[in-house]
Amino acid sequence: MARIVECIPNFSEGRDAQKVQQILDVISAVPGVKLLDHSMNADHNRSVVTFIGEPEKVLEAAFSACSKAAELINMEQHHGEHPRIGATDVIPFVPISEVTMADCVEMAKKLGERIGTELQIPVYLYEEAATRPERRDLAYIRKGQYEALKAELGEKPEREPDFGPAHMHPSAGATVVGARMPLVAFNINLGTSDISIAKRIAKLIRARDGGYMFVKAMGVNLDERHIAQVSINMINFRKTSLYRVFETVKMEAERYGVPVVGSEIIGLVPMDALIDVAEYYLRIENFDRAQILESRLTVE
Amino acid sequence: MARIVECIPNFSEGRDAQKVQQILDVISAVPGVKLLDHSMNADHNRSVVTFIGEPEKVLEAAFSACSKAAELINMEQHHGEHPRIGATDVIPFVPISEVTMADCVEMAKKLGERIGTELQIPVYLYEEAATRPERRDLAYIRKGQYEALKAELGEKPEREPDFGPAHMHPSAGATVVGARMPLVAFNINLGTSDISIAKRIAKLIRARDGGYMFVKAMGVNLDERHIAQVSINMINFRKTSLYRVFETVKMEAERYGVPVVGSEIIGLVPMDALIDVAEYYLRIENFDRAQILESRLTVE
Repeated sequence: MARIVECIPNFSEGRDAQKVQQILDVISAVPGVKLLDHSMNADHNRSVVTFIGEPEKVLEAAFSACSKAAELINMEQHHGEHPRIGATDVIPFVPISEVTMADCVEMAKKLGERIGTELQIPVYLYEEAATRPERRDLAYIRKGQYEALKAELGEKPEREPDFGPAHMHPSAGATVVGARMPLVAFNINLGTSDISIAKRIAKLIRARDGGYMFVKAMGVNLDERHIAQVSINMINFRKTSLYRVFETVKMEAERYGVPVVGSEIIGLVPMDALIDVAEYYLRIENFDRAQILESRLTVE
Repeated sequence: MARIVECIPNFSEGRDAQKVQQILDVISAVPGVKLLDHSMNADHNRSVVTFIGEPEKVLEAAFSACSKAAELINMEQHHGEHPRIGATDVIPFVPISEVTMADCVEMAKKLGERIGTELQIPVYLYEEAATRPERRDLAYIRKGQYEALKAELGEKPEREPDFGPAHMHPSAGATVVGARMPLVAFNINLGTSDISIAKRIAKLIRARDGGYMFVKAMGVNLDERHIAQVSINMINFRKTSLYRVFETVKMEAERYGVPVVGSEIIGLVPMDALIDVAEYYLRIENFDRAQILESRLTVE
């Protein structure tokens, strides 16, 4: 396993499968990089790609992909429903295993510098890599999208990029690079069809209404099963752990005499998020992740 | 991660570190094989080595190690406290990830065949690979040790090997090869200094006294902490899971008004043993191990 970083670049091409394939090809061509997933959305005219590997290799693949996208995608002709400012719109690095957030911030800066210098594309750092507090927020950087940024870059000081020229790349626009924690989609099913209970519990556990700092949640109906669900995005499972949220939902549901009947994890989850849960419930003392057999494997 | 097998060969040399190093060297020399651990015991005059990798590579490394041991160790001059019949005394294969027990049985047979034919060492298959019920038990095969087996091999039909000649190798003796589940050393700490409670609980949970089929357990004192511990060997965590044993110990301890204050895992543990625990307590529905990010990594 060794040191692993996940990268989830978003490209402003969601209609031409051949072009997307060319981008995927340059990513796969980097030895040691593993492509996990990709999705194209024609309405958004955007693709989202997921790959993992050791930091140096992931950085290399991200740069190659960005370079290829700059060659293939012309922002002057791009239309789609999703906000965007460039051919490679955003590149987040996510620490998965034996890599710190500081390492990912470092990667973001290195990649930003290369994109700015070698490709002459203006780069903004966001989230954990942001150099100004307001730039932690991707929406702030993308305000007005490609068209507004093109007009304001070089004019307004708040638009000054972290790397690269103070003007748009003629076809590839600008790119946002950064670092963030992995997101875990964790849904908890209640033994009731009353969605109002799921909504009340969602409110109690989410950050913006006074709940846990790294939890986003809402109440939804599972129509087929006639039950309500608390649908949760865990945005930092290390600081707000899955078991804490699970036990809190159970505790709040008890007030209504409603049991928790199950849960589900949608998509990918880092192993550590589940090992935390086992450690908590088994009350394991002094456990070292190096004791996990699989953690001894290095990707060569 | 991909397909991973663990191999824990035991060699009849626990005093000459240089010879042991030569055996370790031929294991490490196989690309893709990762040496995890080794220990020498001078009283036993025996070494235990742990390594992992993909099935084909692990098989290759096990054969090379057995061949090197046959070259270095002379059973005619071997003395030690631990029962043994050969230079490479026993070679178990253990399925860790994306490998079945049937795959490991197949590996044991292939390796046994090679050792028998190419090295002219008689080989007995044991545990899951055994060809006769009584040979599942290693102690049965090793009865009377090297000396008795040497006298009886070729004479008594029950000593007929699964592979190789019906006489001992002049220096390397005989070898036992097989497949078994990984063993997890899992200890549960009680909030009492009364060891009799730990002993009674150990008896309730272990197979031989009517407890769980794949549990061995005993009660011990943790002198430093002045508490009693149920010390457990989980010999098949897939069929008897850690959470079941933990909850059963908690339940039995309650009868004495004794809480479970903690637990510990000694040495290595397969990831799956802990993921099972998280799945149980979070009541996760339809979870697929492929959702674990790290499981997507292949060792290249």
